[in-house]
Amino acid sequence: MPVPCHTQAQALPVGDGLAEDGPSFNAAERAAVYRAIALRRDMRHFAPSPPLPDDQLQRLLQAAHAAPSVGLMQPWRFMRLSSPEWRARLQPLVEAERQRTAVALGERDTEFLQLKVDGIRDCAELLAVVLAPDDGTVFGRLSQPRQMAWCSAACAVQNLWLAARAENLGMGWVSMFDPAALASALSLPAGAEPLGLLCLGPVPAFYDRPMLETTGWRQGRPLGDMLMASPPLPSLSPPPSPV
Amino acid sequence: MPVPCHTQAQALPVGDGLAEDGPSFNAAERAAVYRAIALRRDMRHFAPSPPLPDDQLQRLLQAAHAAPSVGLMQPWRFMRLSSPEWRARLQPLVEAERQRTAVALGERDTEFLQLKVDGIRDCAELLAVVLAPDDGTVFGRLSQPRQMAWCSAACAVQNLWLAARAENLGMGWVSMFDPAALASALSLPAGAEPLGLLCLGPVPAFYDRPMLETTGWRQGRPLGDMLMASPPLPSLSPPPSPV
Repeated sequence: MPVPCHTQAQALPVGDGLAEDGPSFNAAERAAVYRAIALRRDMRHFAPSPPLPDDQLQRLLQAAHAAPSVGLMQPWRFMRLSSPEWRARLQPLVEAERQRTAVALGERDTEFLQLKVDGIRDCAELLAVVLAPDDGTVFGRLSQPRQMAWCSAACAVQNLWLAARAENLGMGWVSMFDPAALASALSLPAGAEPLGLLCLGPVPAFYDRPMLETTGWRQGRPLGDMLMASPPLPSLSPPPSPV
Repeated sequence: MPVPCHTQAQALPVGDGLAEDGPSFNAAERAAVYRAIALRRDMRHFAPSPPLPDDQLQRLLQAAHAAPSVGLMQPWRFMRLSSPEWRARLQPLVEAERQRTAVALGERDTEFLQLKVDGIRDCAELLAVVLAPDDGTVFGRLSQPRQMAWCSAACAVQNLWLAARAENLGMGWVSMFDPAALASALSLPAGAEPLGLLCLGPVPAFYDRPMLETTGWRQGRPLGDMLMASPPLPSLSPPPSPV
């Protein structure tokens, strides 16, 4: 069933009040934000749970909807697919992609097939996040229209992820599916694209580190590896000519 | 100058300690996370400021680096471009795209040209966020490899944005540039893509609402408009034949 419609007037909770010097964050609030960022995990293991209360799901989606978007296009769409029937319908799509992925991986196929790649059956709520058909927004996306739409939707998912972590709920972004097959299963309108299936709900425990690290699939690299030195700037004046 | 390299051992601050029942979030922490999500803005107006302290910039980049990524590919790269020379080099690229955007917008060109679209000259720090050349990761991105890489990098930017807000700093994601021209200016390796110029630093005040709303450019839509109803599931058994 779809979540009920709500209006923009239902804002996010913003704490007990603002500091006297305006909407500034104190050290405790800052630490909480950093904690959510540090402890958020891409979860694949969920605890048995009834569906989330409507007000909690509403808060989480409102957090997603508070994301930035290029030109204010707000290209994210959400579809609630938590019924057992929908889970049963979608699971084979993920399984088929999992088998194709194993083939593409070659020699690590057996190792890959032992990894848990989704929590579709067990999570409290299953949502699809969908990129809306392009609305023709030009502002800020003249040259990279697709990238900027995808990035905007991803920012919404990251908000949802962090809000879920702060609610002590886990979330997993499942990207293992054939997008055409999923678009067809969800009867998406022309031009819409499925970005992910989001598994959301209570978890037995949050992973200490990314699951792909603890299972030995791959190790993350340090921040230092992500920093690029800026190249030398071209000289603004020509070099002196030899005397 | 590039920010110094640090190792993964330098973790994010995660607060004073964990709750007795594990790493759970209490109501105050939860409210802080929701506040950061609600009060984060895409900023274009910055206050005069010296460069950020190294430890603060390091914390912010570590928050970005804590983002999820498909197959743990961590495709985000950052380049610090805060020198006056780099700002002067990059400003004309943004201005050229601004002029092209005005032409593409047609009848709203004058209105558009009155909007402030970047804070490159005034922000305390100017960073480029770059998508690394594809590393061939297959896990989770067999069918949508480019999209999943963009989404992962965008999650990192959203982490940075929220951490900055919690540090009472503003950030703006400038996407108005020709990507080929920017890639050339930054001497990016083949296959790398510039996703944005990030303006970061103290601001005179955070916008109450998105700047594109307060300037009358465009109004955001309510969450209800973003919720799609799931389609009817195909019946698993054929309809009974007429007697």
